[in-house]
Amino acid sequence: MKKNKLKKLITDIFLKHKLKKKHAIICSEAIINAELVGAPSHGLSRLKMYCDRINKKVINPKPKIKIKKISQSITHIDANNSIGFVAADIGIKNAIKNAKKTGFGLVGIKNSGHYGLSGYYAEQAVKKNLMALVFTNAPPAIAPHGALKTLFGTNPICFGTPTSSKIPFILDSSVSMINRGKIRVAAKTGKKIPEGVALDKFGNPTTDAKKALKGVQLPIAGFRGSGFAWMVDILSGVLTGGNHGGKVKDPFDDFTGPQNIGHLFIVIKPNIFVGNYNQRIKENIKRIKKLPKIKGVKEILYPGQNKFNRYKKNSNKEIQIPENISRDIDILVSKL
Amino acid sequence: MKKNKLKKLITDIFLKHKLKKKHAIICSEAIINAELVGAPSHGLSRLKMYCDRINKKVINPKPKIKIKKISQSITHIDANNSIGFVAADIGIKNAIKNAKKTGFGLVGIKNSGHYGLSGYYAEQAVKKNLMALVFTNAPPAIAPHGALKTLFGTNPICFGTPTSSKIPFILDSSVSMINRGKIRVAAKTGKKIPEGVALDKFGNPTTDAKKALKGVQLPIAGFRGSGFAWMVDILSGVLTGGNHGGKVKDPFDDFTGPQNIGHLFIVIKPNIFVGNYNQRIKENIKRIKKLPKIKGVKEILYPGQNKFNRYKKNSNKEIQIPENISRDIDILVSKL
Repeated sequence: MKKNKLKKLITDIFLKHKLKKKHAIICSEAIINAELVGAPSHGLSRLKMYCDRINKKVINPKPKIKIKKISQSITHIDANNSIGFVAADIGIKNAIKNAKKTGFGLVGIKNSGHYGLSGYYAEQAVKKNLMALVFTNAPPAIAPHGALKTLFGTNPICFGTPTSSKIPFILDSSVSMINRGKIRVAAKTGKKIPEGVALDKFGNPTTDAKKALKGVQLPIAGFRGSGFAWMVDILSGVLTGGNHGGKVKDPFDDFTGPQNIGHLFIVIKPNIFVGNYNQRIKENIKRIKKLPKIKGVKEILYPGQNKFNRYKKNSNKEIQIPENISRDIDILVSKL
Repeated sequence: MKKNKLKKLITDIFLKHKLKKKHAIICSEAIINAELVGAPSHGLSRLKMYCDRINKKVINPKPKIKIKKISQSITHIDANNSIGFVAADIGIKNAIKNAKKTGFGLVGIKNSGHYGLSGYYAEQAVKKNLMALVFTNAPPAIAPHGALKTLFGTNPICFGTPTSSKIPFILDSSVSMINRGKIRVAAKTGKKIPEGVALDKFGNPTTDAKKALKGVQLPIAGFRGSGFAWMVDILSGVLTGGNHGGKVKDPFDDFTGPQNIGHLFIVIKPNIFVGNYNQRIKENIKRIKKLPKIKGVKEILYPGQNKFNRYKKNSNKEIQIPENISRDIDILVSKL
C-alpha cells in the first residue's frame, strides 16, 4: 500500500479509537517510520495490539498528561497511561527545548507505554543539531545473570548525534541478542529465529520463535548485557517513577492493567564545552571510514546509516504488509 | 606489603616525580583501590608507566587545570595534561557539586590521561547519594565493525547508583570482550588469555597475550559493541574537545606526546523526579534477587557487589605484588 494512503488509514483507525487528531497523527507517523526504516516489528505488527489495549481501557486514548517543569533543564512527565508514542513525542520535544535553552535537557516520563523505536526520538533531537541519550524499559524478556526467569526487558541503549552530514548517527541497540519484536514477527510469519539468541521455557536452546517467546532471550555478552539491562531498568523505571523490576506488563498478552513504562531522555548541545563540534565529528567519522577494511566490506558504516538508506529506498515504494497483519488491519478498517 | 605502607611509598614516588602532595595522595589512593577491588591491571602495574610519562614530559606533574563553569549544572575542565587521576577527581567532585545544587551535573574534561577505573569515580557520586554515568575513551584496542585495524579504545560504559544499602551498584563494563589491562598483566606475567577475546596482527585468533596486544581486541556482541565504543569515543572525546578517532596515544608505548584523553561525567540526583528513590531501588533489587536461580548460583548479584566483597576481604590482607612489578617499584624506590 502507498505510504500516504496507509498513514491516513492508520490515523483514521486511531481516531476511531478516540485519540485526538494530533495524537493519532503522531502515532501513525511513528508506525509508518518503523516500516520505512525496516523495523516492521515496531510498525504495523503492533497496530492491533494498541487498539486492543485502548478497547480494554489499559491505554488511555484521552490522557491528561501532566508536564512538571522542575528547572530550566529538567522536566518530569506523568503520561496518564497515554499511548507511548504521544508521551515520548512530548518528552523529547521538552528535552530539546530545555537543551536549546540551557545546553542540557533531562526529561523523565512515567505512566507511559510502548513507544516504538528509541532511535526515532533520538533522531528528532539530532535534526535540531543536538545529541541525545534515550532509555526505556520494556516487558520481561531477558533473565538477569544467574537467574532462571526473565525479568529485564530488551531495554535498548540509544544514542544519537549530528554528523555534519544529513545522515544522523543513531545507535539504537537492544541489549538482547535479538530484538523481541523480531521474534514476534517470526512467530507470526512462521519463520525460524537464529541459533544462540534464545532458550525455551526449560532452558534449552531453541530456534522456534513461539517457544522463544515463552522462554528466555539471551543478553549480549553474558553478565555485561545483563548489567546494561539492569542499568536501563533503573534509569528509565526506578528514576522516573515508572514500573521496574519486571513489573512492566507484556502489551500483547497482559491486559490486566496499563504498562506504566518509564522513559528517560538526556539531550545535550554539542557545542556546550568547545565550539566547532560539527568539524570534530566530521573528522572523527572520516578517520574511521578511512581504515583498511575486512575483505568484502565496501564501506565502514556508522550506526544509523543502514537505517537511513533503507528509509530512503523504501520511501518511494509501496509498503508490503504480511498477510496475517493485513487481515488484522482489514478488520480494524471494516469498523471505521 | 601492608596497604598503608604501600600507599605511603606510592605517594612518595609521585612526590619525587614533582606532583603536589594533594595530587600524589589522590593518585596513590586510586592505585591502591584498584589493587583492593581486584583490578591489578589498573593498579601497581601502571605505576612505572605514569612515572616514565612524567619523566618524558608527556604527563604534566604541575598542571594548571582550568575549570570553566558554563552554568550552575555544567562545567568544562582543561586538565593541562595532568595525570588522569587528578583531572578525574576534580571532574567528579564538580559534577557532584553541580548535581547537589541543581539536580544534575555535567562535566566534560579534555587534555587528561588514563585515570584508572571509571567505577572509582562513579562510586564517589554514589557515596553522596547520587547516580552517575561515566565515560572515557582510551588508546586503540578494538577495530570498528568492518575494519581491519584497531581504532576504538576499550571505552567503558559505567553507571552507578545508590542502593539503599552500603554496597553501591557500580556497573563498569568495557565494551571489549576483555579488559586491555588484563591482557597487559597476562603479558607481563606470561599467562595465556581466554579464547575468543582477541586476534593477532594477521587477524588470526590468539590466546598469546603479547600477540593480542599487537593485534585486535574483539568487541562484545560484534557490531553492537563496536557501536557502543563509537558512542563513548564521541561522548568523551569529540564532545569534550579531547582526542578521538584513534588519536589517544598508548600510554605504555607512545611517548611522542600527551594522551589528551577526554572524560564525561553525568551526575543525577535520584529524587529529582519523584521522591523515595531509596525505597524504589531497594524494591527493584529485592525483586531481582528473589528470582529462581540457575543451578550452582547462590545469590543473584548486582554489578559492584563482587568488587565490594573483594575490597572488604583484601583490605585486611597484605597486597601481593607480582615479581616483575615489584622490581619496577624497587627501582623507583631506590631513587627516592
